[in-house]
Amino acid sequence: MNPNDRPQPGLWHLAERAQAMNPSAIREILKVTERPGILNFAGGLPSPETFPVAAMREACAAVLAEGSPVAKPSLQYASSEGLPELRQWVAAELGKQGARVSPEQVLITTGSQQGLDLVAKVLIDAGSRVLVETPTYLGALQAFTPMQPRFASVPSDEGGVSVQGLRDVLQKGERPRFVYLLPNFQNPTGRTQDAARREAIVALCREQGLPIVEDNPYGELWFDAPPPAPLLARWPEGVIYLGSFSKILAPGLRLGYVVAPPALYPKLLQAKQAADLHTPGFNQRVVAEVIKDGFLDRHVPTIRARYHAQRDAMLAALARHMAGLGVQWTQPVGGMFVWVTLPAGLNAQALLPAAVDAGMAFVPGAPFYAEQPDARTLRLSFVTATPEQIERGMAMLAGVVRQAVS
Amino acid sequence: MNPNDRPQPGLWHLAERAQAMNPSAIREILKVTERPGILNFAGGLPSPETFPVAAMREACAAVLAEGSPVAKPSLQYASSEGLPELRQWVAAELGKQGARVSPEQVLITTGSQQGLDLVAKVLIDAGSRVLVETPTYLGALQAFTPMQPRFASVPSDEGGVSVQGLRDVLQKGERPRFVYLLPNFQNPTGRTQDAARREAIVALCREQGLPIVEDNPYGELWFDAPPPAPLLARWPEGVIYLGSFSKILAPGLRLGYVVAPPALYPKLLQAKQAADLHTPGFNQRVVAEVIKDGFLDRHVPTIRARYHAQRDAMLAALARHMAGLGVQWTQPVGGMFVWVTLPAGLNAQALLPAAVDAGMAFVPGAPFYAEQPDARTLRLSFVTATPEQIERGMAMLAGVVRQAVS
Repeated sequence: MNPNDRPQPGLWHLAERAQAMNPSAIREILKVTERPGILNFAGGLPSPETFPVAAMREACAAVLAEGSPVAKPSLQYASSEGLPELRQWVAAELGKQGARVSPEQVLITTGSQQGLDLVAKVLIDAGSRVLVETPTYLGALQAFTPMQPRFASVPSDEGGVSVQGLRDVLQKGERPRFVYLLPNFQNPTGRTQDAARREAIVALCREQGLPIVEDNPYGELWFDAPPPAPLLARWPEGVIYLGSFSKILAPGLRLGYVVAPPALYPKLLQAKQAADLHTPGFNQRVVAEVIKDGFLDRHVPTIRARYHAQRDAMLAALARHMAGLGVQWTQPVGGMFVWVTLPAGLNAQALLPAAVDAGMAFVPGAPFYAEQPDARTLRLSFVTATPEQIERGMAMLAGVVRQAVS
Repeated sequence: MNPNDRPQPGLWHLAERAQAMNPSAIREILKVTERPGILNFAGGLPSPETFPVAAMREACAAVLAEGSPVAKPSLQYASSEGLPELRQWVAAELGKQGARVSPEQVLITTGSQQGLDLVAKVLIDAGSRVLVETPTYLGALQAFTPMQPRFASVPSDEGGVSVQGLRDVLQKGERPRFVYLLPNFQNPTGRTQDAARREAIVALCREQGLPIVEDNPYGELWFDAPPPAPLLARWPEGVIYLGSFSKILAPGLRLGYVVAPPALYPKLLQAKQAADLHTPGFNQRVVAEVIKDGFLDRHVPTIRARYHAQRDAMLAALARHMAGLGVQWTQPVGGMFVWVTLPAGLNAQALLPAAVDAGMAFVPGAPFYAEQPDARTLRLSFVTATPEQIERGMAMLAGVVRQAVS
């Protein structure tokens, strides 16, 4: 070792916010589950069987064809706002859901996760109060944490945050910067807000002057009927809306979007520019090419049908194997996840090693809580296993629970 | 308008850092220059003629081929650290330049701009002192600004920051979090630190315990000889190094990287995860496919030759047309930019409308200064115009200067 390589103590002075950052708890947990041959219900990944490889191949070939007028522009620096074709598509799709949005309000982001980062930068000061569901999406907690908010968990039930709970939390402290909500097939619980709940939440937020950050990565993955209109449609000027191509095309493209009220858009744009200049133009152009002729109208129903069958398999297997064990679980009407609550006294994290030994893996629920976790909870993804694997996996999980309660 | 759409005053409470964010001055300036038919030397874009469209087309086809084992993985969520093949490539390339780097120290980022954002999040508190060159890369000022540093400009000459100037600035205030340096063909000036300057800077930084953030987007674009070894090679544990594929392949892919000392790497990784989970896996896989058989060894020399001829054309045209006008300019030995200083009393920004009327555009230098700007300065890019256009453009610029000094 060159003497000049010796660590110089105190050389690097970390920012205060860096102390608050932590390795993803889930990431560490998932390492435990990466044993070969294991039936893995722990991930948050969409099924790779749904990735439109052929359509991507054709789109790349078209964009990069000899003489293609978009080849070089797709490889050059591009605008921070995003490709006009995609911004128009987002506005049109939201229009179909009752939200009147101009393409000028759409900011294409490097995955929906970046939208959360930009929102945090623009709206959170150290110590700002931010309201979240109980439990909530872990990636949002991670995205917000570097800006050092104080999280407050709003009591929630199988229909999302409780309106009375939200009112109570609002009365208990200073005005929060926003409430972060996932109305459709929420990660991690799979729950959905019905239309009445949405109306009541929006009415309260409007009355109290509480902005909403609405995150909707799963909304297209409904099984029997589309979910009610988004919160954005009910309160255009009080909602920042986040969407994603990750679950309807492929997450490896890192394509998401933020829809913001005109008053806020310029600040989010400046934060975007500072963060990575713009979302990869090549990816935007390829996706615009993939979706231009109504491809998603044909493709997304195939994802819905697949996940629907898997959801059915999981609910049936849980009903079959958990009978009499005092276990509860959600009944998702879309999305990717079922949320399980074990009987009182059990701890999901403590059961994980036994489950892995038995041949299956789940994610303990604790990391999804911003405040006091419910240690009995765990999340199961039903989208990357076959119905037969789901049947076997749930039998294994039931065996582990049976062992623990006996 | 629905009454519910009416703006609710004070609904959105911006974070303090959002007040500090501003629209890019350059972006606003560039709008002035977007007149059709104008000879545009204002941009910071690489020449699209250098984009390897055919290689990209073949790589996309290979990655997405029927039965390709990497097709679906390239479209799935991926690791935050980056694709192992790219991390190994970066470490190997830096090894050739004398820097002993492990692939574990390499973090693939969504463009080099994201590297600056992550560095800012991990190292800058509100009020932290950060040292920069005079002038410096505007995008870095934009990336750092949201974390609210106090910038101090280090006096700089045609060889980069002055060592005595750096010592003086260090003595004048509290210890800075880092000094941000672009040793090779700097944006905006085109200047390069020679080996002696690098040694002296590193010696002083090591003595004073001042970490270095070394930004090297242009290093491969040398004309006659490669630049001296990077600062990273001279002080591995005191330097964060940023690199990019934007100038040697294409910026629309948004692929860059950060090389960090092992002590710092985990915090940058956590910041990366929070920012966008990971850099698009598809882009990483395609680039790994493009570069795997030594493509860059054949491709980059063609970029060098092209930019070299354009640099020659610009220096010759400046010498021819500016004779006797009291104008000075840099003599870049690589990169994309020449930096021009007009005679005392002239203001580059004030001359821009006349230049645009004459048929050419440049970027005024003022936005590149963190503190007091030199209003006489301007930046010219020589890489997106032909030698003939460069000749005409410099004649136009000289005409405008002649008009102004007469």
